[in-house]
Amino acid sequence: MYDESQIAIPDGFRLTGVHCGIKEDPENEDLTLVLSSIPAVAVGVYTQNVVFAAPVELDRERTPTPDARVIVVNSGNANACTGEHGRNDAHRMAALAASACGVDEPQVLVLSTGVIGELLPMDKISSGISSAADQLANDDFSLRAAARGMMTTDKVHKLAGRQATLGGRDIRIMGMAKGSGMIAPNMATMLAVVLTDAELLVEDAQRILSAVVETTFNCISVDGHTSTNDTVLMLANGAAAPEPLSGGAVDEFQRLLAEICTELARDIIGDAEGASHRITIDVNGCRTWDEARKIAKAVANSPLVKTAVAGADPNWGRIVSAAGNSGVAFDPQRVDLFINDTLIYKQGAPTEFDPGALSSAIRASRETSLKFEFQEGTEGTRFWTSDLTADYVRFNADYHT
Amino acid sequence: MYDESQIAIPDGFRLTGVHCGIKEDPENEDLTLVLSSIPAVAVGVYTQNVVFAAPVELDRERTPTPDARVIVVNSGNANACTGEHGRNDAHRMAALAASACGVDEPQVLVLSTGVIGELLPMDKISSGISSAADQLANDDFSLRAAARGMMTTDKVHKLAGRQATLGGRDIRIMGMAKGSGMIAPNMATMLAVVLTDAELLVEDAQRILSAVVETTFNCISVDGHTSTNDTVLMLANGAAAPEPLSGGAVDEFQRLLAEICTELARDIIGDAEGASHRITIDVNGCRTWDEARKIAKAVANSPLVKTAVAGADPNWGRIVSAAGNSGVAFDPQRVDLFINDTLIYKQGAPTEFDPGALSSAIRASRETSLKFEFQEGTEGTRFWTSDLTADYVRFNADYHT
Repeated sequence: MYDESQIAIPDGFRLTGVHCGIKEDPENEDLTLVLSSIPAVAVGVYTQNVVFAAPVELDRERTPTPDARVIVVNSGNANACTGEHGRNDAHRMAALAASACGVDEPQVLVLSTGVIGELLPMDKISSGISSAADQLANDDFSLRAAARGMMTTDKVHKLAGRQATLGGRDIRIMGMAKGSGMIAPNMATMLAVVLTDAELLVEDAQRILSAVVETTFNCISVDGHTSTNDTVLMLANGAAAPEPLSGGAVDEFQRLLAEICTELARDIIGDAEGASHRITIDVNGCRTWDEARKIAKAVANSPLVKTAVAGADPNWGRIVSAAGNSGVAFDPQRVDLFINDTLIYKQGAPTEFDPGALSSAIRASRETSLKFEFQEGTEGTRFWTSDLTADYVRFNADYHT
Repeated sequence: MYDESQIAIPDGFRLTGVHCGIKEDPENEDLTLVLSSIPAVAVGVYTQNVVFAAPVELDRERTPTPDARVIVVNSGNANACTGEHGRNDAHRMAALAASACGVDEPQVLVLSTGVIGELLPMDKISSGISSAADQLANDDFSLRAAARGMMTTDKVHKLAGRQATLGGRDIRIMGMAKGSGMIAPNMATMLAVVLTDAELLVEDAQRILSAVVETTFNCISVDGHTSTNDTVLMLANGAAAPEPLSGGAVDEFQRLLAEICTELARDIIGDAEGASHRITIDVNGCRTWDEARKIAKAVANSPLVKTAVAGADPNWGRIVSAAGNSGVAFDPQRVDLFINDTLIYKQGAPTEFDPGALSSAIRASRETSLKFEFQEGTEGTRFWTSDLTADYVRFNADYHT
């Protein structure tokens, strides 16, 4: 959530969000613009979906780069599955932002999120970019408008930040994200933008971002559906620390970035459509981290597990068999399972726990913890998901194109 | 569904189903017994879940075999996650059936389905086996009772059969199955028993059954959750044709077996909990059958696709992006998608179809067809799934242990 004390706009960045008419409600921003006053290192991590959107294609070609200046984002339209026309629109959007901000077109990165398969309303995008460029600022109001400009079905905007002294300089890292599952009518899902006024070598920036995404945004799932537009971009402009971070300062930066991305990832799950619980899944005692995540993901994506949590049902049978179904080999006689710290399954057999009391505890909190202890090795991971409610189904079924 | 004209109990088999008290309602059979008057070839295909039930362990050890006589099935209790005690109970169940039927204990195969993690009520099982052994018959009444004795949350029993002349002899193949998704409170899912009076070599029987299961029962999904108890058993006693089938007759047998298993698999999807649509997914033009099934399965298990069909929403964006999310590489610009034979996505872009008319067509029928045409190769597959409704969630969430 929005922790004011930690969040500051990094030096050298101005940004804002405006309403340009892609969304119907004039109260809802639908275009965000971010400008770095000096060239920034930019790196990205993108959707693995074979079907990817035009802006993803553009950004993939342009990152990593030591020379980015602008990120332009629109919400309400994903510019996905729009063919050649869509690719031209993404480039046109970059050109409009470059012109409005006075930078070169290749220095612009583009993000889109929203309805799949419709062409961008370029007239609205164009006027939105113009008015956003006029309103760029580095105040709190602009920051919140920028975060809101990325939202689609999100109920709340998502910001996280850290301030630290690294390599002898005070630096800031700030992230904003959108996403509540690829759950809405044709809506594409998660985007995140991280800005920092630290300087990073391009290769360090890419390595760090890729590593952090693995354990944060890639460890959440609402519905197991990777969208066509998922993108995480990080801009490091060095405005506060012109020398690239090195050695331990890079590690510390990575740690802070992981904290920010974890907060944003958890916020996305907290905002998951129709959800009544955020579920934290810990999987320990595995041979490898990959195996731990594979098990966690299988549990997270099981509709039976998700409906059990929605119903406050401490249903270890569903949870254990979902793990058994993950494709990872383990000894079923050497598994412990905890729900909300209550040991309910020990060494392959149920314990004598009080299901009524545990059910009441699940019902009483929005947070549910599932923890596996295997005895195959020493690796583990943490994963977040949401429960599956009738509201989720209604939301996703009651829409018609 | 139950096609009387094709279904006949194969020669040399007697069977029945009785109520022994595992289920509360005395109208509901909960124990099924099948006896072959002569030794039968028996082969099985079992759950891939790492967490598997005691009867699965017992049957795995005993099959393939040329010398099986009895299958004993109970419903209402899965004898899964019950440890050493459960393994002993499975063997005790086999011993009771052997004694009641006058066969050797190793000639008995055991199936259980129902609640996970509770010990079998062996007194009820024991009296059920005794009374079932007294009532074994080869009439239609007994056949239906046997099919019902396997049911858990199924709304209808599932039978399919074929009669043919193979190798110069009239033979019968008959299958019965249960399953409506691993959807119910701790219920384990699908079981199928196939009986034939044809004679098969053990190795032919195993090869044929394994191959047929791949394209039938392994091509259905309600919720992507493979249970702890899934088992398909086939008994071939040769009562009608003492010489093992060979050459083309084996192929013809396999074809008939595939028809039976397809009917039963479709019946399971037709009975899927809370479902308002049965969805048939055809995936053509792939490099390999495995890739085609992988794509089909990703689409089948996407909650977004399932809710779209529930809402009669011809939402090609969700369907295409689910395919793109399957892990199979394909050219997104060379994909066609049909819903109910309407081409709605052609070569990577949406067509000008009438969404309202297509939505009405989806709503008007319980059957929905999704068909992909890729241009990667010549392989394809067919897969069946159900839609995801608020009723499904209510059913699975509103239960408490």
